[in-house]
Formats: sequence, C-alpha cells, structure tokens
Amino acid sequence: MPVNTPLLDQVEQPSDLRAMSSSQLKRLADELRAETIDVVSGTGGHLGAGLGVVELTVALHHLFNTPEDILVWDVGHQCYPHKILTGRRDQIRKVRQGGGPSGFTKRSESEYDPFGAAHASTSISAALGFAVSRDLQRRNNRVIAVIGDGALSGGMAYEALNNAGSRDTRLIVVLNDNDMSIAPPVGAMSAYLSRLISSERYRSLRNLALVMTEKFPEALKSRVKQAEKYARGIVVGGTLFEELGFYYVGPIDGHNLDHLLPILKNVRDVETPGPILVHVVTQKGKGYRPAEQSADRFHGVSSFNVETGTQIKSSPTAPSFTKVFARSLIAEARRDDRICAITAAMPSGTGVDMFGKEFPERTFDVGIAEQHAVTFAAGLAADGMKPFAAIYSTFLQRAYDQIVHDVAIQSLPVRFALDRAGLVGADGQTHAGSFDIAYLGCLPGFVLMAAADESELVHMVRTAIAIDDRPCALRYPRGNGFGIPLPDRGEILQIGKGRILREGNTIAILSYGARLYEALSAADELTRLGVSTTVADARFAKPLDEDLVRDLAREHEVLITIEEGAIGGFGTQVLHFLAQNGLLDRGVKVRPMVFPDRFLDHDKPQLQYETAGLLSCHIQATALGALEHVPT
Amino acid sequence: MPVNTPLLDQVEQPSDLRAMSSSQLKRLADELRAETIDVVSGTGGHLGAGLGVVELTVALHHLFNTPEDILVWDVGHQCYPHKILTGRRDQIRKVRQGGGPSGFTKRSESEYDPFGAAHASTSISAALGFAVSRDLQRRNNRVIAVIGDGALSGGMAYEALNNAGSRDTRLIVVLNDNDMSIAPPVGAMSAYLSRLISSERYRSLRNLALVMTEKFPEALKSRVKQAEKYARGIVVGGTLFEELGFYYVGPIDGHNLDHLLPILKNVRDVETPGPILVHVVTQKGKGYRPAEQSADRFHGVSSFNVETGTQIKSSPTAPSFTKVFARSLIAEARRDDRICAITAAMPSGTGVDMFGKEFPERTFDVGIAEQHAVTFAAGLAADGMKPFAAIYSTFLQRAYDQIVHDVAIQSLPVRFALDRAGLVGADGQTHAGSFDIAYLGCLPGFVLMAAADESELVHMVRTAIAIDDRPCALRYPRGNGFGIPLPDRGEILQIGKGRILREGNTIAILSYGARLYEALSAADELTRLGVSTTVADARFAKPLDEDLVRDLAREHEVLITIEEGAIGGFGTQVLHFLAQNGLLDRGVKVRPMVFPDRFLDHDKPQLQYETAGLLSCHIQATALGALEHVPT
Repeated sequence: MPVNTPLLDQVEQPSDLRAMSSSQLKRLADELRAETIDVVSGTGGHLGAGLGVVELTVALHHLFNTPEDILVWDVGHQCYPHKILTGRRDQIRKVRQGGGPSGFTKRSESEYDPFGAAHASTSISAALGFAVSRDLQRRNNRVIAVIGDGALSGGMAYEALNNAGSRDTRLIVVLNDNDMSIAPPVGAMSAYLSRLISSERYRSLRNLALVMTEKFPEALKSRVKQAEKYARGIVVGGTLFEELGFYYVGPIDGHNLDHLLPILKNVRDVETPGPILVHVVTQKGKGYRPAEQSADRFHGVSSFNVETGTQIKSSPTAPSFTKVFARSLIAEARRDDRICAITAAMPSGTGVDMFGKEFPERTFDVGIAEQHAVTFAAGLAADGMKPFAAIYSTFLQRAYDQIVHDVAIQSLPVRFALDRAGLVGADGQTHAGSFDIAYLGCLPGFVLMAAADESELVHMVRTAIAIDDRPCALRYPRGNGFGIPLPDRGEILQIGKGRILREGNTIAILSYGARLYEALSAADELTRLGVSTTVADARFAKPLDEDLVRDLAREHEVLITIEEGAIGGFGTQVLHFLAQNGLLDRGVKVRPMVFPDRFLDHDKPQLQYETAGLLSCHIQATALGALEHVPT
Repeated sequence: MPVNTPLLDQVEQPSDLRAMSSSQLKRLADELRAETIDVVSGTGGHLGAGLGVVELTVALHHLFNTPEDILVWDVGHQCYPHKILTGRRDQIRKVRQGGGPSGFTKRSESEYDPFGAAHASTSISAALGFAVSRDLQRRNNRVIAVIGDGALSGGMAYEALNNAGSRDTRLIVVLNDNDMSIAPPVGAMSAYLSRLISSERYRSLRNLALVMTEKFPEALKSRVKQAEKYARGIVVGGTLFEELGFYYVGPIDGHNLDHLLPILKNVRDVETPGPILVHVVTQKGKGYRPAEQSADRFHGVSSFNVETGTQIKSSPTAPSFTKVFARSLIAEARRDDRICAITAAMPSGTGVDMFGKEFPERTFDVGIAEQHAVTFAAGLAADGMKPFAAIYSTFLQRAYDQIVHDVAIQSLPVRFALDRAGLVGADGQTHAGSFDIAYLGCLPGFVLMAAADESELVHMVRTAIAIDDRPCALRYPRGNGFGIPLPDRGEILQIGKGRILREGNTIAILSYGARLYEALSAADELTRLGVSTTVADARFAKPLDEDLVRDLAREHEVLITIEEGAIGGFGTQVLHFLAQNGLLDRGVKVRPMVFPDRFLDHDKPQLQYETAGLLSCHIQATALGALEHVPT
C-alpha cells in the first residue's frame, strides 16, 4: 500500500528542496519518513538509523548545495532517506538486493555519495581530505561530515578530530547523537555526551535556541569576546570538543526543523576558518512506534508489517553459526573461569550478548574500537586469562597492526572468533570477510582454523581454548548451519591435522571451511561420471597438514583447494608447501579456487558464490577441465 | 671510559631501589643518566626518550613492586634506563646488536617487560587488560602505563582512554609529556597539553606541589567535595581527561623527584576504583646538552662522542632510498600541483620533511595517526588531488581497514610509498616490513610495485603519479641505494610488465624488489658452474606480468621467485597464476623464496638476510638443489 507523498513526489533531486518553505520541509520530512518505513518494510535493511536523521537529511539538502557541497555520511546505514532524495527513489525498493542500490553510501552509485562507507568512524578523515583539497584548489564549497556518537568511540574519529582541530580548514562535523549505535553505546565519551544532553541548562535553554541563534553569525564571524560569550549562552558544555580545537554548537533537537534550519544555516554561512562541531540530538527509530519501542530501535530488520512492526522471518532449520559459537563458549566457560569474551560494539551480532548474560564479569564490550579490543585482549592473555576476541572478519581489519605487533610477535594466546567470514550477502563489498586467511596466514605462529559446519565449530571453540601458547583464529560463515547434529561437548582437535571424508584416486578436493558440502556434492557428481574423487577437510590452514597435502598431491592427478576467501590464503599455504618441497616437480594439476580478484556486490549469498565460481558445479568444471588439460 | 656509578653498581634488580632514600635516588638518577649516555654513545640507538624518563623510571621502580606491579612502557624506546635497572645492565652495551637486548621492551627478554612494544599508542589498552585480569583473579597488584604525548595522538590510545574511563578498574596512566615524539608533535591534543603546561597557574603552583600533595590521598579516597576541590588546587585544567572519566593529576615536573615521589606514592596508594591520569612534564634529551640542543633531541642516534655529541656516521656511497623518493617526488611536484605528501609523524624518516620545505601547503603531518592519514588521503584523492601516503611498511598495518574500505573498494588513487620494506636491522621484529606484499596483494585492483634499486624507485614514483584511477603501492628497503646512476627524470613504466636482465635457459630467477642484485650475483656464480641462468625483475607483483611468468616457467627447468617479504606475497601471485592456468601440470620446479615463518630478531641487515636465507648463496643452493631433485 503506497504511502501518500505529494511533496516527495516533486523531488527528483536535492535542488528541488532548495526553494521549499520551512513548513513544506516539515511536511516533506513526514512524507520521507513514511516512505522510508514503507520501503524497508518490504525490503528489510537498516531502518532505525535512517528514521533518526530524516529531518537532518532534509535540512542538509535544503541548505547545502549538494553535490558541489560535499556531504559524507559516516557508516552510511542511515542513508535511505538521503538516497530517496538524491535521485534513487525509483531503485530504493531494491535496496540491498542483487542489482539494486547498496544499503550504504557508495561512490559508484551517485555523485551525491562523494565518499562511501559501511565501517564506522571514517567520515571526518575523508571530509577533512575534501576540505583541504578544496582549499588547495581555491574552491569555496562546503564540506560536511555526519557522524554518530557510536562511531565517535572509534579511534580514527579522534585522530581526525585531533588533526582537524589544529588546522584552519573550514569543515562542519555534525555529531548525530542518538545515544545508540547498534547496541547501546559504551565508553566515557558516550557518558560525556549524555551529561551534556541531560543537563538542566540544555533542558531549559533548548526552546530558546531559535531566538538565540539570531546572534550566532556575529559570534562566529567576529569572535568578539562578548558576542562569543552570548552565543555560548545556548551551548552547554562541549569543552571537550572546544579543547580539541572545534567550535562547538549544541546540543540541538535534531527532529525540530525550526531549530535545525536556522542553526545549520548560520553554520553554513560562517566564513571564519576552522572546524565547527554541531551537536544534534536525535532518536533512533524516530516516528515509528514499533522501532522506538524496540530494544535495538529496528537497527537492521527483515521485511515487516508496517501496522504492527512484526518482522517476517523465515524460521531456520538449523541454528546460526553465531549461536553455536556462543553456546559452545558458554559451556566451556562454565568449566574454566579464565575464559573471557570481548566484542567491539557488536554484542548481538557476535553472540557475546548471550555469553554476557551468564558471565557479565567476563564480558567486555569496548565500543567501536577494534584496535583497543585486540590489545586489551592481549593484555588479558599476558596476565593469564583466555580471551576470545569475537570480531567479524571484515572489522578485524581495523586491528591488523595490533594483531601483528601485540599478539603475534608476543605469541600471546588471544583467540579470534571470526564471524561473517566469506561472502555475507546483502551487506555487500564492505562487509565481506574475504581477506582474513591471507592477512593472518602470513603471520608466524598463528594457528588458523575454519569450521566446515556447526559441529566443527564446537570442536574448534574447545580447541582454541586448549591452544594456550600462541594466538589462533577460527573462522565461520554468516548465517545458519547445515543442520548437522552437535556434539555434547567439543573435542580438542589435533593441531594441524585435517580429515578425509571420502576416498578416491583421481581427483582430490581439499576444502578449508564451509565450502565442504559443495565439495562433497561435486564429488558425488564426479563419481557418477566415473571420476573417482577424494574429499578432505583441511580444518587448519596453519599449521598445514603437510602429510595430508603430500599424500593428496602424490596420489591424485588433480588437487583442488577451495576456500571462502581471496588469493593469499589457504591455497597459498598449500602451493608454497608443495613448491618448496619439490612436490610440483613431477607435475600436479593443482587448482586453487579462491574469490575472484574483484569486490563482489551485494546479493543473495548463494548468488554471490555463484558469481564467485565456488559452487559444486564450478568445482566439477574445474576438476574436469584439469583432467582434460593437456600441458603444453 | 666507564662512568663512575657507585650507587647504580649496587642495583641488580629494582628491589634494590626500594629502601633507598630520596637523596640516594637523586644520585642514582644522575648515575643512571650518565650510564645511559655512555651506553648509547657506544651502541647508538634511542637516547633522547630515555634521558627524559630517568627520574620517572627511578621513581616508578622505587615506589612500585615490579614485576608484580605491572609497568607497561608505550613504544618502549625510552626503556634503556629501565633495562639497566632491571637486570640487563651487563647486556645493555650490546643493545640492538645481534644477540643483544632489543631496543624496545620485550616480553621474552625479562619479566620486567610484561608487555612489549615498539609501535606507539598500545600501552593503555594492554594495561587495562592487565588491570581487569587482576580484578577477575582477585589479586591486588598495581598496573601502570607510561605513554608519551606523541603516542596520545594515536586513535587506539583514545579508544583505550574511552573504555578505561567508563570502568571502575584501578589503573594508573602516566602521561609523559615532553612535547616531542620523534618530530615536534602536531594536533589539537598536543596544543591542549601545551596550554595546560604554559598556564600561569601551573607556573605559579608547581613549586607548591610538594606541600599540596599532602592533601591528596584524602581527596582521592573520600571524594568529599571540599577536599576534592582543594586537591584540585594544584591541578590546572585536565578537564578533557576528567570528561573522559579519569581522575587527572598534574602537571608535575618529571625531573624533580621531590615532586614525583610523593605524588606517585599517593597515586599508588589510592584504593578508590577508577583510572587516574598523572600528567608528568619532561624534557626529551634531559641532562645531556648536545641532546637538549639538537632539533630531534637525539631521538635515534648512531654512536657518538660523549664530550661533543658528534655522531659517528659512515659516509654512504649512495643516497638513501628515502632521499631518492623525496627528491623524485619533489621534482614531479614542481610539474604537477596536485601532488601532495602525507606522513604520520615521521617527516624525516619518510623524506616528507624535504618535500615540506618546498611545498608546505601540500604537506601534511597528521601525527601518529595512520588510520586517519590513509582516509584523509582517500578524501584528497576523491576530490582530485594526487596524494602520496608515505608510511613505513610496518606502520601501514595500522591502517589496513582504511586501505581496504576507503581506498581499495572505492578504487581511489592513493599512492602508498612504503619505506622500510623488508628487514630493517637494529629495530628488529616489530619494525620489519614483512607483510605488505601479502596484505595488499589480496586486495582487488591494487597496483603493487617494488623498486629493485634507487633508479627503479625514480621510475616508480613517476609511474605512481600516472596511475590515477586506482590505488598503488611502491615498496623500497631501508638504507642506501646500490650506487646506480639516477635518471634525470623517471619514466612511466608499463603497468604489469617486468624486465629481463640476463637470458639463460636452465634456471630462471624472478626477483621482486631489492634482492635483484643477489639474484644477479647468484646467476654469475651459476653460470660459472655451467648452469645457464635467466634473471628477471618483475617490477610488479600486481598486476602480474603473466607473459613473462609463463615464458619463464615454460622455458626453464627451475623457476625461483624471490622477494623481501613473508609468505602470501609475490610468490603467491606467481604460483596462483601458474596453477590456475595449468602451467604446473607438466612439472616445473618452482621455488618461492620468502621470509622464514618466524619473527626475525634485530641484527645487521646482511646477517638478517643470511638468517632468512635470501642471499646469493641461498639462491644458488636453491637452484642447484632443485636441479638435482628427483621427484618421487
């Protein structure tokens, strides 16, 4: 049932907003909110964050001359209203689907997305780059970064504030403070922001904002002491940002266009050099009661009924890998009080929330702060604890140096639980866990495991606990398991040993991780075609099961390796071993199957793996092609 | 000429300091300073930072019960006095030499180094890990992190402050504020600290510190409002840290034991939960006039004459790669005003200081903030500039996610100039540039180059400028070039094309980077032995010169690849290409030569490469071994 949106229907691009009156903009915001709810009810996706910035989005596109003025959204999951206003309304109902728009901002999609995102805390750095470039090129456009309070816990946001605050570059940072990232935010900065907002002065003064802002431009332009002091009348605190060199304005009610429009207009027109931080207070999920009342404010949802807010979820036949991980870890933690779990602001995504319910003392949500998370875990390990850093493969990239410098070099037994390893579906390029096997595989001393199924994951959790003299990582995919029965308790696997599931003598398929069932299916088909096929699960990429690899290479005509990752990972470990030990010298048809060398767009996971060429049919084709290949 | 150190001679371990009187400690500090100067005059190494913390080191080991109390030094280059006091005085004169102590803290070296370092900004995270672990294990030891103001510009330090500040964990952070990291510090935080120190109240109040501190414990324990206010009498500002949840004490003169000892004692004895930040002001190079008067405060020095401070430097026969890079970039920047240079607090190490002298507007030192550096560069590139992010291979690990998420996925033409690629000598494990070929090689769209010599580097700088539609990285080693004549101007190399330097028909050596001359030397020797040898320089690891690799594999019995990096890099690109195209099927004796799978200790670079097995003799042995190998 399409919503009634007469004003929104007139907006083809942001320039259509420029002439609208304040009251028109208010109606437009209401329509935009209804449209956003309607869209996401059909598509699923990120809803709460977008609803929180409807008025802000309208105000920014009304006041600023986008796309010449550069608007950078941090994370980008709040961009659905922005996309609707910037020429993508006709595609938005395919958001996150194959061929449809991304669920995040994306440069290749629109000139209104000057800098894409999806991971947090990048916007101020990028915006400062745009602003400095503008100055060097003697242009005069504005640059605005919109960053949430959650993203502000990320160290790179602070690095950028610290750098921008010491420069005379004109830059506007809008702090979108909804006191909620995905989970409720943690950390001292969050507490600080809450104090600013909850103060009596903010409460009593917020209604005066409109009147007071008339005095703003003078203060900002002249920096005359008296005027400045006067302007400061409407701000409460903000000293932290002032100390970091920003001119602080706020807090402002981010849902009240009567406040937002004049203040942002004033900020826009400031000609004085230096960065300005506008502190806007919003409510995640604003204007949609089921979202407002939900614990996670409808952060990410499946499609839902607009009337009731009931999400339409298919009931899975098997538990998710995340849940299997969490339950296994909980079971082991009952036996060993040194086991801890660390998450970087993703308690539910990683299953650490479940662990935290039973072991609150041993559970640490450090905020969007992967670097700190890893070195904090290293400190715990150095003092004898058994920490699990549960971080998505893609987000662990944020802590690569800490993994090398603080964990691997010191051989500290931090256990990395890498959820969302491999292709992840609707979240697309930025969230794919493509590189961890490569970026960890080059590090001396690391033990690398990948779970072929949920039962293997149970074993690997227990094995990781047993590895107490060096770091290890276990990777497992997004989504549900294969319905494999789970063991009562995991076994401690022999480090560096794989397993053979099916024995043949012509083709060997050596799988690392969750492509195993594709490999088995390919083996079935090949056997049917009369091609005898061995299937093995390597379990470990490092240390490699050298005996297994040697035997497979010697006793088969073709050796296929398959993994859910980019070049440089498991196949590399196998090829190097074979080459360095002369096992390629007599000729082996080795075929490493890895992700193609490009970033894959969002789509259904199965279709992504089809695009990647990593399904059973591709394994068969690779095997048969290798068999038929006559070396020249 | 050994210095006279009667008190220091009595110290075998920190417990020997515990009973010393204040006046003894002062004399001990003087002796320790003299000893440190004498040591480094003979060995070279980091001096200025150590001299700045002599009194602090003495005070901490006197007051705290190390090693049960956990003392974590950030970066660790200030640890020479600490090493001298903690049982390593007899080895310190071999510091940074093969078999001698590391120039940084190192867990495997001493129980007094509970957490090693070398990269900046890690100490608070690690210390919080120790502190939380202590609480979970119901112990009662203290945990102290000592972090410099430079390291405080790193985002992970902020992440850690933010996390610690919201917890009730007892933790002491000593901010060692010397207003100088390696280069003068930059950023708003630095300016903020300067304001704290330069304020009138600090100047007038610092001499009262001793008296006032008598009142401290009460304030800290009771948090009674009046007492607290009184205690605050001696502090000036610090609101930023207070807002972040720390109890702020300072600034304190870090060279005055009469101030340091009572204040640190009070801080030690606080039983109230929550973190405390002690702001200590020190002078880098303190007490050694040549260091105090030097621009870089003798940050890192070669051996020197103690009387004069004159450093004993061998005069190189060829310019350093760093200088060749800087000069090439400067020459190109005269022709193209879009070229910019970015450094993360390493202006002289990267040569960006030279660039900055000619192009100050286009030069950006963002502080120890590699994450921000890379995304800032991405913003510049997105707006049409041509940024060079000049960051050591090892430090670029800090920005891995930014490289993936902000640069590679968006295909933005950020140019990464990776100095210190490969083994780096005395700085050892933590500074080796071992992984960049692997961690960048797995990323779609990246162009990867390595300079075989300084002339190649000139070409690659120009080539990098020409690559304006995607990211690229050029890597080059630490130290001086080979004395190769430099071209007047670099040529734009054909992307993805290598070059053949010598043609043979039995062995092919395909080099990536600066092992080329070892390869040529090996070829000489092999030819002398009657083994016809081809030598090629790949120039590019990505895109790979597939024609070259195919021809080398087809037309030789043995194909050796060699690179200055770990598994997963250039050899991986070659092996995957060969395997996926069936070129291994008929049997090729491929031998990838990479770093061994362990972290290599500090030593002379030549000896490190001997340990790594990457010298001419190893190439010969690999070639002959492969020739003789009879595949089974």
